[in-house]
Amino acid sequence: MDTFDVDYLLTLQSGETIDQKLRGICLEQSVELSGNLISDEIEKRIVGQILRREPMGDQKFNATIRWPVDDIGTGITQFLNLLYGNISLKPGIQITGIDWNALPDTLFRGPAYGIHGIRDKYEIPKRALSCTALKPMGYSARELADLAYEFALGGLDIIKEDHGLSNQPYAPFDERVKACIEAIRRAADETGHRSYYYPNVTGDFLQVKKRYLQAAEWGADGVLLSPHLSGLSVMHHLARLDVDLPIMAHPAFSGSLITQKDQGFSHALLYGGLWRALGADFVIYPNTGGRFSFTAKDCRSINEAARDTDLNYAQSFPTIAGGMKRSTITKWLDTYGPDTVFLIGGDLYEHPDGVRYAAEEFQAKLEDY
Amino acid sequence: MDTFDVDYLLTLQSGETIDQKLRGICLEQSVELSGNLISDEIEKRIVGQILRREPMGDQKFNATIRWPVDDIGTGITQFLNLLYGNISLKPGIQITGIDWNALPDTLFRGPAYGIHGIRDKYEIPKRALSCTALKPMGYSARELADLAYEFALGGLDIIKEDHGLSNQPYAPFDERVKACIEAIRRAADETGHRSYYYPNVTGDFLQVKKRYLQAAEWGADGVLLSPHLSGLSVMHHLARLDVDLPIMAHPAFSGSLITQKDQGFSHALLYGGLWRALGADFVIYPNTGGRFSFTAKDCRSINEAARDTDLNYAQSFPTIAGGMKRSTITKWLDTYGPDTVFLIGGDLYEHPDGVRYAAEEFQAKLEDY
Repeated sequence: MDTFDVDYLLTLQSGETIDQKLRGICLEQSVELSGNLISDEIEKRIVGQILRREPMGDQKFNATIRWPVDDIGTGITQFLNLLYGNISLKPGIQITGIDWNALPDTLFRGPAYGIHGIRDKYEIPKRALSCTALKPMGYSARELADLAYEFALGGLDIIKEDHGLSNQPYAPFDERVKACIEAIRRAADETGHRSYYYPNVTGDFLQVKKRYLQAAEWGADGVLLSPHLSGLSVMHHLARLDVDLPIMAHPAFSGSLITQKDQGFSHALLYGGLWRALGADFVIYPNTGGRFSFTAKDCRSINEAARDTDLNYAQSFPTIAGGMKRSTITKWLDTYGPDTVFLIGGDLYEHPDGVRYAAEEFQAKLEDY
Repeated sequence: MDTFDVDYLLTLQSGETIDQKLRGICLEQSVELSGNLISDEIEKRIVGQILRREPMGDQKFNATIRWPVDDIGTGITQFLNLLYGNISLKPGIQITGIDWNALPDTLFRGPAYGIHGIRDKYEIPKRALSCTALKPMGYSARELADLAYEFALGGLDIIKEDHGLSNQPYAPFDERVKACIEAIRRAADETGHRSYYYPNVTGDFLQVKKRYLQAAEWGADGVLLSPHLSGLSVMHHLARLDVDLPIMAHPAFSGSLITQKDQGFSHALLYGGLWRALGADFVIYPNTGGRFSFTAKDCRSINEAARDTDLNYAQSFPTIAGGMKRSTITKWLDTYGPDTVFLIGGDLYEHPDGVRYAAEEFQAKLEDY
């Protein structure tokens, strides 16, 4: 019987034993019945089996449960349900590890490009990549395209849209995307250097696929997608289409899964593990020290998981965002290394000489490193 | 300019003032730039405006921000992003209220049936409804259909599938759903009383719509859907199709949004408010005192929001689950009133004389109340 292992960080609640807690997860996430109501055969074939329980002090345990692959069936929503469906409603359960290589590639196949694929495609063999965000919401398609043009003249690698740019009346999706593609091409004609434009295709059920295919048809270079808004299985689906558009995943709406110390997912597993498995070529997360609450350890752990070479599929590009600045980029290059995309937004807009010069400065720091 | 108001429960972090925190939300969820980088015109037209800040003691504030409807554009994913996209990654922010009636019905139209629609459809004008769950995962389609037959002979109103029944090899979706529909009809032919069968259509992007349409075509009476697994916009989409299948929403994978006291969503807003707005005819949640952690106050607040008659659209049926028992059903009827669906799973399976008799007992308690 094919199985896969899931690691948990468990925190005992008042009156609970570790064996009760583990057995509770094994039953809750499979048969959803008391053990006395199921046959030995169902117990063996369907219910999770406890592999490991390791006390960590302070009522905490690291534990591993082995699950039958057949419990997942044919979709990643049932994988997510088995992983964290009902137990998301219970205290003291955090998912910290998954044995990805034990899962069939009919379920998970990872990024279509990943770090090596993107480096080959963009002919940037070694250095870190630059990225910025087009904003603010409220600008017209023309104003956003003018910004894209300036950033492209400044030589940035990737110009993505802010994840709040959707299909608002002041800059409708089709008008905006076409205008930005034209602007990026015009800049490339002038400089001989091509920047890559990633529009935000996040949208409702069916909208998102339509936008992804339109972005490809009109000539975008990749897309931005917030998988926790559109649905995690959407990223999985888009990454497998025969369409030449890398996916940059944005963490909007994902925060509650990682802001609790003893519940949800570890940072590494959610952003470096699950998103990678679902096909994110780029994994955006907010850097430590900015206006969000990730620690230095959280950030390192995401990078390690996203780049882990023991997995059977391509690596994801850690994409560091959330208040990054030109002035500290060298420090972060030292810290995170060259297999990183640095996303600077607001700080480029603050440059007294304009975004083009800000982009030039930023790009030079990466190229000269 | 059309606007809508959102209420927040804010908990100040070390060194933070309430004005900083509120202004931070107004900018973060719209322009994602510092206030000094945007024009007065963008400030007025796009950025959230602080309406109210009310100290609650212990570093907590109730607050309200007014948002432009145009910031949402044409989809509920951008509504969710504005509501809780980036700020999901920040501590001390909980969404507690939304002025639903201010939002256009192109965005939210509520349940297609709701409490009154279901009562009319099933000709149950006043009493509470009964519901159970087919399980366990691991049973064949035949075994699950046999159970459905027994429950239907027992006279239950709604027989839904366990939310873990997906498309596993031991009971594939099509075989299972067809077998259960046949079993329910056979029981109705024998008793003259019709039970209503709700298969689980939760699935990946595109699978879920296909399953919903198949369930309708084959003759199911409604469906079970876990919107946090398939994607929240999926429920919104299915509820608007011209298909005669009410939607029962299951809370799998939603827990992290409500298990933090000072973050995420209030129970009432998520299950009674947002799910209702997105089209859930039935709102399943785990009752207080069971194996999950909802308080009595949480449960009451969900019921009040789901049944609130001040909204412009149909009410959702609170569907109380998570360890409900035959022995205490009268107490919960007293507590929650007749506009409630009671979902008893495991306790019916434990009846020494079998599920048919357990169902009869359960049903009698509701009909005789």
